[in-house]
Amino acid sequence: MVGRRWAGVILRELLRGTTRFRQIGDAIPGITDKLLSERLKRFESEGIVERSVIPTTPVTIEYRLTEKGRALEAAVRELSAWAETWLPAR
Amino acid sequence: MVGRRWAGVILRELLRGTTRFRQIGDAIPGITDKLLSERLKRFESEGIVERSVIPTTPVTIEYRLTEKGRALEAAVRELSAWAETWLPAR
Repeated sequence: MVGRRWAGVILRELLRGTTRFRQIGDAIPGITDKLLSERLKRFESEGIVERSVIPTTPVTIEYRLTEKGRALEAAVRELSAWAETWLPAR
Repeated sequence: MVGRRWAGVILRELLRGTTRFRQIGDAIPGITDKLLSERLKRFESEGIVERSVIPTTPVTIEYRLTEKGRALEAAVRELSAWAETWLPAR
């Protein structure tokens, strides 16, 4: 269930409006950059997350949920509530 | 997402009260016995499903959701609604 649990906490963070890789990573204790990067790429390929490159110097990368991603909110909320009750604390 | 999608449809079937391996498999077009068996074993190891052996001849095996498994109902419902809207038909 580990992979799925990470997916849930990343989505929760994106639903809160966090857009920067570093901020998402810092908000999730224990996640590695490698895993976060893989998950975000997967979400992007699934059309759940959109990655924008803003031409600042250095460039700014932002991650935002697409409409398809935002539509997961109720499911993420229910899964989080279930995990809080039924899974041992991480 | 394939693994997760199967997990959802199996849970949905168990939530409906289907208890027999063959009935669960028949209710899910396209799932193989191998995959269903693996998923049920995993659910069992996670405490989501309970497997009972009833001493008939031949033995009857029944799969039922535990309390932890039944608590997933709202999340499964929300995920199913999301998938129906956002994922291409299988």
